[in-house]
Amino acid sequence: MPLELVLRALHDPAADRQREPRQARLCRLLKEAILSGRLAPGTRLPGSRRLAEDYAMARNGVLFAYQQLLAEGFLEADRGGTRVGRLPFRRAAAEPSAPPPVSFLAQRARRLPAAARDESFLPFAPGVPDLNAFPWRAWAKVLQRAWSEVSARQVAYAEPGGEPELRRAVAAFLAARRGVACTPEQVFVVPGGQTALDACARLLADAGDTVWLEEPGYAPARNVMLAAGLRTVHVPVDEDGMAPGAALWRASPPRLVYVTPSHQYPLGSVLSLERRLDLLNRIGDGWLIEDDYDSDFNHARPGAPLPAIQGLRPDAPVIYVGTFSKLLYPGLRIAYLVVPRWAVREIGEALRALHRGGQAVEQRALARFIDGGQLTRHVRRMAPIYRERQAVLRAELRARFGGCEVLGGQAGLHLVLRLPASLPDTALVEAALRRGVVARALSAYYAGPDGGNGLLLGYGMAAAERIPELVGRLAL
Amino acid sequence: MPLELVLRALHDPAADRQREPRQARLCRLLKEAILSGRLAPGTRLPGSRRLAEDYAMARNGVLFAYQQLLAEGFLEADRGGTRVGRLPFRRAAAEPSAPPPVSFLAQRARRLPAAARDESFLPFAPGVPDLNAFPWRAWAKVLQRAWSEVSARQVAYAEPGGEPELRRAVAAFLAARRGVACTPEQVFVVPGGQTALDACARLLADAGDTVWLEEPGYAPARNVMLAAGLRTVHVPVDEDGMAPGAALWRASPPRLVYVTPSHQYPLGSVLSLERRLDLLNRIGDGWLIEDDYDSDFNHARPGAPLPAIQGLRPDAPVIYVGTFSKLLYPGLRIAYLVVPRWAVREIGEALRALHRGGQAVEQRALARFIDGGQLTRHVRRMAPIYRERQAVLRAELRARFGGCEVLGGQAGLHLVLRLPASLPDTALVEAALRRGVVARALSAYYAGPDGGNGLLLGYGMAAAERIPELVGRLAL
Repeated sequence: MPLELVLRALHDPAADRQREPRQARLCRLLKEAILSGRLAPGTRLPGSRRLAEDYAMARNGVLFAYQQLLAEGFLEADRGGTRVGRLPFRRAAAEPSAPPPVSFLAQRARRLPAAARDESFLPFAPGVPDLNAFPWRAWAKVLQRAWSEVSARQVAYAEPGGEPELRRAVAAFLAARRGVACTPEQVFVVPGGQTALDACARLLADAGDTVWLEEPGYAPARNVMLAAGLRTVHVPVDEDGMAPGAALWRASPPRLVYVTPSHQYPLGSVLSLERRLDLLNRIGDGWLIEDDYDSDFNHARPGAPLPAIQGLRPDAPVIYVGTFSKLLYPGLRIAYLVVPRWAVREIGEALRALHRGGQAVEQRALARFIDGGQLTRHVRRMAPIYRERQAVLRAELRARFGGCEVLGGQAGLHLVLRLPASLPDTALVEAALRRGVVARALSAYYAGPDGGNGLLLGYGMAAAERIPELVGRLAL
Repeated sequence: MPLELVLRALHDPAADRQREPRQARLCRLLKEAILSGRLAPGTRLPGSRRLAEDYAMARNGVLFAYQQLLAEGFLEADRGGTRVGRLPFRRAAAEPSAPPPVSFLAQRARRLPAAARDESFLPFAPGVPDLNAFPWRAWAKVLQRAWSEVSARQVAYAEPGGEPELRRAVAAFLAARRGVACTPEQVFVVPGGQTALDACARLLADAGDTVWLEEPGYAPARNVMLAAGLRTVHVPVDEDGMAPGAALWRASPPRLVYVTPSHQYPLGSVLSLERRLDLLNRIGDGWLIEDDYDSDFNHARPGAPLPAIQGLRPDAPVIYVGTFSKLLYPGLRIAYLVVPRWAVREIGEALRALHRGGQAVEQRALARFIDGGQLTRHVRRMAPIYRERQAVLRAELRARFGGCEVLGGQAGLHLVLRLPASLPDTALVEAALRRGVVARALSAYYAGPDGGNGLLLGYGMAAAERIPELVGRLAL
């Protein structure tokens, strides 16, 4: 009789060792047997007294277990006593879902290219600042102070735009450093730059709409556009940045143009003023998404980073996207978008429908860190350090990779080394990773087949004195 | 001559008062004049020596300003000296974008219903735990300890699944409390429950695919589905939870079914075992999204929360979504999804393409908080407090709203009061807000026109002794 077989496991020594109480064990065993079909719907169970006697349990334990399973619907009671409920248990259990033969993901998800793993704390990982040089103690102290003043409002859901202190601090910081013209209300704080891009993709474009991306370009931006169902058009990049021809404007007018004007990602070219004006003049009722991901460190003319497109014409349909990942640390996950004045209300409401805000304590700490000048001091301290690292890296690359071109470096935290076909970048990247160095293959940043061949080398985490040795590891 | 008019502003007393340096001022004035078209392309500028003399500036200041504008492309130099660049400046400035006559948002964004403002720290706001009763000091200490041990890896970008410690802690916590059967690898930590739902919408369904939602239902879930371009079908809810008929399965087979089985949001019914099995048996190659948003406090049978659908058949196409918003605090923004074993690799890679992880320090602190038993102690302490609050609220509602039905309360942190047509819920909500009480209108949770009339009342933030007085404020 199957019931006896099921109940015999009440004396399972393994369950004894794990100290599973008898009552919980009885519940579990009956449930498993019912779900697997070993106990058929309608099967009568013994009375609680008899079961308790037969299996040396307290009768109350049996009663509670039966009550639990009755309440959950696994058992049912009638005048004759207790029996297994008459529900289609077995079908559920007998046909376990096998992994489907093809991908179960949505088509748009299947189009997402494989992303690199984030060993971003290793030297030469691009897009990461020097995490060892950040004033952790000062930051922890600011955080601690914010926690010591915490109120219920700050730990509840927050308005999605962010804490007013932080929005004010960001607006002032951007005006001073980036020529961005905005009020605090135009600043919307979001958890990470990718969330900012994702909001643009979903709120400003519909599935099937056209987005222009730079080729080569920033893969995570492409990914959120694909995930939003957009049609991606890849626009070539030259030494003056994104270079769309007049024909492309006619053939594939964009709803969104994603551009990294300060320091094109990954090649490092700076979008010329002429092209910036051209984008503004032609965008019509589309949108420019200006990703100013790493303009904070400007090496070409210290103290004068190239101003943002946003500031050229403050009421233009430009969404300026910035992040604190490079100024503070990537794990912070605080970024922001700056929207035109006339878009504040509608975008604010749509964001509220999509996101529930939080992290108010961290945001208040950050606002204080900015207002107190600690952030600016950190940036001032790091700028010459990064400049030196870039110079050392550039010299080492020249020394070791003779005639190869080195691109970028006017701003940001990485350089690009072009490689000859005899040194395939993916092979170098793999070899380097085995030696504890994270380079990225330039070819991976191309969506089309005619990708370049080269290496992206971030120097944020590479101390100058280590660079010669680290560059030595970039070999086949 | 326009140039003189422009330069005369170098002596602007307002700029003097703001201590704007002459060099920066010269830059700004020339740029503004060029962008606005007051200085036409090609206009000659005076030599640096003459300008310096005429306007009492240091010649170096003029030279630096010219250099800056030359580098940015606003000026150009030839043998004759310096002149305004010949670029289409004016067109950019002369046609400022006016707010468009209709909404500029994407169509899918325009369909997003207006979301309620988050005054979620006020009494009766649903979905918020008692933020005054949380052990803030213990939490701050755990955070502080995590910060004192911080490493570069923890503040860099993180793998999107979350910190291994937290994934382990969540898996153990869910197995013990929710009957969820999973390994730590099946747990993906994400910044907030809405991000979890959003990932489901974008990774598991394409634009135009059908998603079933509960009617009435959780508005933020509907919003992410709309933003993902999905077709929403609203399935009625009765006292046994979501009730799709056989005809609906035939007419609108779903790609996704979003369901809140433990405590239907907002009505509070519990999805019957029969319906759970039915969903599993019929879902085919679609997906169940089981949102277990507030099952942590089970009031009907203390100590035995209803187990999750996920545990009924561990390999079924179920995504279990949970959050720490109710157990800790909403502003934390840490939630998770549990995916089937066979989906770990593909969903993991797709999530990596979409999200860049972070907040490792907070995640490690949370793991320690769970592993050290502090979370369970907090939940144990709060459960009877919430039960008492619910009982007091229920009694007060009965006393003040005579024959009105009160729904829900088997789990979670809110009750629903049905109202007669003579008391329109939106009017009551407005009146209550003026008295500092946040009730939500039941009608707002309906997508269709035949909405119910009633109030959602969260008791998480309402101390028992205040409830009679607070209920008194719910009047027209």
